Amino acid sequence: MKNLTTCLLAATVLTLAIPAAAQFAKAEDAIKYRQSALFVMQQNFSRVAGMAAGKIPFDAKVAAESAAVAESMSKLPWAGFGPGTDKGDTDAKPEIWVQKAKFDDYARKMETEMGKLAVAAKSGNLDNIKAAVGPVGGTCKSCHDDFRAK
Amino acid sequence: MKNLTTCLLAATVLTLAIPAAAQFAKAEDAIKYRQSALFVMQQNFSRVAGMAAGKIPFDAKVAAESAAVAESMSKLPWAGFGPGTDKGDTDAKPEIWVQKAKFDDYARKMETEMGKLAVAAKSGNLDNIKAAVGPVGGTCKSCHDDFRAK
Repeated sequence: MKNLTTCLLAATVLTLAIPAAAQFAKAEDAIKYRQSALFVMQQNFSRVAGMAAGKIPFDAKVAAESAAVAESMSKLPWAGFGPGTDKGDTDAKPEIWVQKAKFDDYARKMETEMGKLAVAAKSGNLDNIKAAVGPVGGTCKSCHDDFRAK
Repeated sequence: MKNLTTCLLAATVLTLAIPAAAQFAKAEDAIKYRQSALFVMQQNFSRVAGMAAGKIPFDAKVAAESAAVAESMSKLPWAGFGPGTDKGDTDAKPEIWVQKAKFDDYARKMETEMGKLAVAAKSGNLDNIKAAVGPVGGTCKSCHDDFRAK
């Protein structure tokens, strides 16, 4: 009976693990995926941040569109940080997989702040956007400081 | 009066051109942007296509999520094909900027078919998904045949 329970438990864990494991054909695809998603996000966020800083002329429509894309992109990179994706062409520190809960917490915070920026940008009000850009940048920095190689 | 009209027209064209020109700090960012967006899209599309082909176990939830991401990604690469982004680390043929209308038409067709796949995947019905995968693949192939270097 104990063996059966162990077996069923193992089977359940295996089944739960399949979606994450099966998402990418190989580790290098997962690494490229997270880098690609982060780059697309960063380009859109930087445009809005540039407007907030007065470095790019403010265009409310472009700001709203860019922030919306940045928000949707903010949800994607994390699928690419699965087990076995710590080695290869990556600046991700191995600490990510040791302190996964802390890393995931940073990820959720970034998503949350990017969501607030998208709401601010949708309002079309530059002051709202300015107030929301800093906290997003802060979440990027915290995670990069702890988990990205220099 | 004619000079004034010409001037105003030129100013209007310049203003209209600013958003596209200002979207990326440099051409290599635009190139990396379109490649990143296409990679994220392809990874999600391939997962759904793999399920349709029986190569990946069908998971309705994962298929619906992946197809939804692929659809939203299908709208992004085109901003990265602006003027002056024909040279650099790219497989994009220079013909793109000569036959821009044809290229844009391929892009719209791909977006349309990817949208149909997202609807099919949302239905949770594998037969619907199977029917929608082929046309998407067709739009990828047409464009790659004409506009991507081997």
